[in-house]
Amino acid sequence: MRKISGSVTAPKGFLAAGIKSGIKENKLDLGLIFSKVPALAAGVFTRNEIKAAPVEICREYLKDGRAQAVIVNSGNANCLTGQKGFNQAVDITKHLSARLAIRTEDVLIASTGVIGKPFPADKIIAAIPELVNKLSRAGDITVAKAIMTTDLVLKKIAVSIKIGGWNVKIGGIAKGSGMIHPNMATMLCFLTTDACIELSALRKALRDAVNESFNAITVDGDMSTNDTVSILANSLAGNPRIKPGTKHYRIFYDALKYVASYLAKEIAKDGEGASKFVEVEVIGAKSRSDAQKIADRITNSNLVKTAIAGEDPNVGRIASAAGAAGVRFDADKLEVYLSGLKIMGQGKIYDQARAQARRLLQNQAIKITVNLNAGKGAATKWTCDLTEGYIKINAAYN
Amino acid sequence: MRKISGSVTAPKGFLAAGIKSGIKENKLDLGLIFSKVPALAAGVFTRNEIKAAPVEICREYLKDGRAQAVIVNSGNANCLTGQKGFNQAVDITKHLSARLAIRTEDVLIASTGVIGKPFPADKIIAAIPELVNKLSRAGDITVAKAIMTTDLVLKKIAVSIKIGGWNVKIGGIAKGSGMIHPNMATMLCFLTTDACIELSALRKALRDAVNESFNAITVDGDMSTNDTVSILANSLAGNPRIKPGTKHYRIFYDALKYVASYLAKEIAKDGEGASKFVEVEVIGAKSRSDAQKIADRITNSNLVKTAIAGEDPNVGRIASAAGAAGVRFDADKLEVYLSGLKIMGQGKIYDQARAQARRLLQNQAIKITVNLNAGKGAATKWTCDLTEGYIKINAAYN
Repeated sequence: MRKISGSVTAPKGFLAAGIKSGIKENKLDLGLIFSKVPALAAGVFTRNEIKAAPVEICREYLKDGRAQAVIVNSGNANCLTGQKGFNQAVDITKHLSARLAIRTEDVLIASTGVIGKPFPADKIIAAIPELVNKLSRAGDITVAKAIMTTDLVLKKIAVSIKIGGWNVKIGGIAKGSGMIHPNMATMLCFLTTDACIELSALRKALRDAVNESFNAITVDGDMSTNDTVSILANSLAGNPRIKPGTKHYRIFYDALKYVASYLAKEIAKDGEGASKFVEVEVIGAKSRSDAQKIADRITNSNLVKTAIAGEDPNVGRIASAAGAAGVRFDADKLEVYLSGLKIMGQGKIYDQARAQARRLLQNQAIKITVNLNAGKGAATKWTCDLTEGYIKINAAYN
Repeated sequence: MRKISGSVTAPKGFLAAGIKSGIKENKLDLGLIFSKVPALAAGVFTRNEIKAAPVEICREYLKDGRAQAVIVNSGNANCLTGQKGFNQAVDITKHLSARLAIRTEDVLIASTGVIGKPFPADKIIAAIPELVNKLSRAGDITVAKAIMTTDLVLKKIAVSIKIGGWNVKIGGIAKGSGMIHPNMATMLCFLTTDACIELSALRKALRDAVNESFNAITVDGDMSTNDTVSILANSLAGNPRIKPGTKHYRIFYDALKYVASYLAKEIAKDGEGASKFVEVEVIGAKSRSDAQKIADRITNSNLVKTAIAGEDPNVGRIASAAGAAGVRFDADKLEVYLSGLKIMGQGKIYDQARAQARRLLQNQAIKITVNLNAGKGAATKWTCDLTEGYIKINAAYN
């Protein structure tokens, strides 16, 4: 596997475009990804009980396992907009499919932005001709920009792998920032590949890759109504069809997981107001589930995250968060490491390690390791620190 | 029931003192509450797996259901201080009991402050003579000050009730601020009463009152290693002994719950950096447990709490937090009210209510009501907003 330039248009047969439709004031806010031929498709969506209209529509349209286009807007989530918002989103897929001369059910749709404001479908429908006209391989940059909300950094990647001698490519773009939580929150990710792959293999690969990547990140513990990760696989690479459980599947899955993990980490690094990237690794738990609960609790602790923002080696907050996860463990066996430095064990904090810990906290990337010394369960989560910048963004956002 | 002046020394036979022992620089940091006669006693403690030494000791000492004194320090939590810290805390109870001429097991101990720093037991032991000498009825103010850490407001209350013609009093002080969560976090509360009551009734009343009060508040979702609520009941009111399940028990319990709820709300109002008090009421859930999960999720949502800080009527964040609680519900039946104003229902946000909602958010106290319209389960939680002040306090705290 090697990284290559580009993103969603790196695989064969994909085009993209991003334009200003007027939802936002003079900013890119509408994007399109298009495969020249019908593609197999799969999606993973938010588990929030409140689901935005586009999420409901994608779940319905993806039942047949195929799609050919993805239209996405920022600036309005089309969520809690009632039957009207749902009908508007369906209308958009109808207009776009007519313009592209494809089936309506082959148009996926996604939205991100404020919840509960009337959805400006008219602006989007009016912009469809321009959007389609601008489709190009170079449009991967503008579509990636069009999905950004409070993101500061454009998130994109592409990789190339060999499947039975054929070159297969996978590309992706994502947006994240606030509200990122293990259950994928206000997070959109669009993946493309020219791989030829069985639908069951594509669906499994996407589900597993999301669990190992986007579901491992948290910015503020909130989970959005619009989270969407989708993949289109158009077979144009010409490789022998990838079947589940094979060596070729493993190569494809590893590459997809790499792409998803890369984008997930980019999202955590770019969390609202974030100044530091934090990896929390829990090992030695009785089960993976126990390890996940503790990693969740630490990555969602405001006290841990403000301590890291302040470069304050407040190990007690890490231990206390671990202890509050609802998992039974022996406090005397608990060990905590900060970027490799042992700072707690045998029921006490190593106060003498405080000065060195403080120096380690000056780094941009921090790793916290918690060892329960009780078994082989392990989990890793990624997050960012909690700064005044987060409050500024979220108290003023309208 | 009526509110009276004073706090822990309002009930008969109680004295208190707070002094500067030198743990903090020139601040009250050591306190004592003392009953002239041995009292029945009960305690409720943190459920964090990491428990501070004083918590372990109190649990042991309270097995016999009696106590006569409570010593408490701020400035150091005596947590994750290993066997040494445990032994130091025991030493303090020995020195104090000798000075007071009472049993060692009748001394309760509590600590609050930074975790994992060596515990300055020598300073406390050296200060015991002065602490005991200063015991007085007026000492309830200094002991309440001695337990404050980042608290801005002194939290105290006393009430008087009639039990079978006799005047019975209940008093209490508390400290809270950061880390307050449903499972009682870095929160200390000391209650006193001159009621004559059976031990089983006292224990049940305290447990239930804590569940309805301190376990209903959250500031930042973290749960501390030192949380302690204790009560001493010294029988000096002379009332007929209160037995479980009686009318007298109900009168006593209601008053105790009032005292605990008052102190809990004071803690939520004084959350670190808080500018607003927020009550979240969930009704119409299938079960109380469902309602609690949703109320927890909303009170712990950074996005909801920053929106309130910014006086931004971002109803979508409330609905989204409700939907992320892991409770199944019908989004179309969900109704959300902001301080009585209906702002969401029938699957959509009432955008036209936004201006009025914005005005309501300018108040100091905000009430959010969520109705699932699915049953009779209900729960109420209290919290505060999330401001830049919280970050400032917690990123810089050392």
